[in-house]
Amino acid sequence: MRRTDFSQFHCSLGRALDIIGDLWTPLIIRDLALGLDQFDQFAQDLGISRNLLTIRLRALVKNGVLERIPYNERPLRWRYQLTSKGRALIPILTALTAWGDEWAGDGKGPPMKFRHCGCGEEMVPTVCCPKCKVQVEADSIEYLKGPGARAARGTMIIAQGVPKGQPD
Amino acid sequence: MRRTDFSQFHCSLGRALDIIGDLWTPLIIRDLALGLDQFDQFAQDLGISRNLLTIRLRALVKNGVLERIPYNERPLRWRYQLTSKGRALIPILTALTAWGDEWAGDGKGPPMKFRHCGCGEEMVPTVCCPKCKVQVEADSIEYLKGPGARAARGTMIIAQGVPKGQPD
Repeated sequence: MRRTDFSQFHCSLGRALDIIGDLWTPLIIRDLALGLDQFDQFAQDLGISRNLLTIRLRALVKNGVLERIPYNERPLRWRYQLTSKGRALIPILTALTAWGDEWAGDGKGPPMKFRHCGCGEEMVPTVCCPKCKVQVEADSIEYLKGPGARAARGTMIIAQGVPKGQPD
Repeated sequence: MRRTDFSQFHCSLGRALDIIGDLWTPLIIRDLALGLDQFDQFAQDLGISRNLLTIRLRALVKNGVLERIPYNERPLRWRYQLTSKGRALIPILTALTAWGDEWAGDGKGPPMKFRHCGCGEEMVPTVCCPKCKVQVEADSIEYLKGPGARAARGTMIIAQGVPKGQPD
């Protein structure tokens, strides 16, 4: 069953998910952030089938999240690296990983921790307001109509006026 | 085809994705954050089939992301609300939405914008280090072995020593 195509969905979250919403895809991106860059490494680390991995890597290259670069000519071998578009996902995936540590752990502690190179401290990556630097909580967000708002699939109701927000 | 079960995957990102990795699920959670709370509202806003929506809502209740609360007795009617576990996802989903605005837009501008109630300013939700308050970039993260690290599916290679990190 082909899944719904979200690439034209009228919602930036839907479009983002269309690129990374497959369950394997964020794990492949994470593996790249961790320094793995070859097909066999992803296959071994994740236990993903080679067929599915091929499909996922092709989609990520097509969507501009990864680049494929030859590192050996004979035999021809490829390695993968994140583009700027892909690198911009990494902090968000670490924040989601921290959510998993807190809310979906097995009681044995996080498999992985993060350290921020900027200050040298261990960190739990946290979503903040870049202006006042305060942690963003669900309750501290107002939703406003953006310039691209329209009533279309993905925002059918909310484009008519964001229920909880205070539209301009 | 039943998808791979990631709930026992040895990676908190994998476990997080097992809960919210379906493409529809984060959109339902977003709709709740925006103030929709009834089955028919989700169906109308997203254009999701009623059958699939039923399955997704049940899974979210089972996983503790949503609660189902009766709001009318005769006929019996239910509304949904986010739990603490679900509410903790909202900032991360807004950060992913902002990524979609930047990297997967249609050139017409964001359908939705965010305002931070704390300071009253429009914001692009951003992942920061909670200690030094600096924005986290892909390059500014070191990955460390956590207490729960082990070589299992999901972290088969990286548990042996995070390639790019500097394990303790």
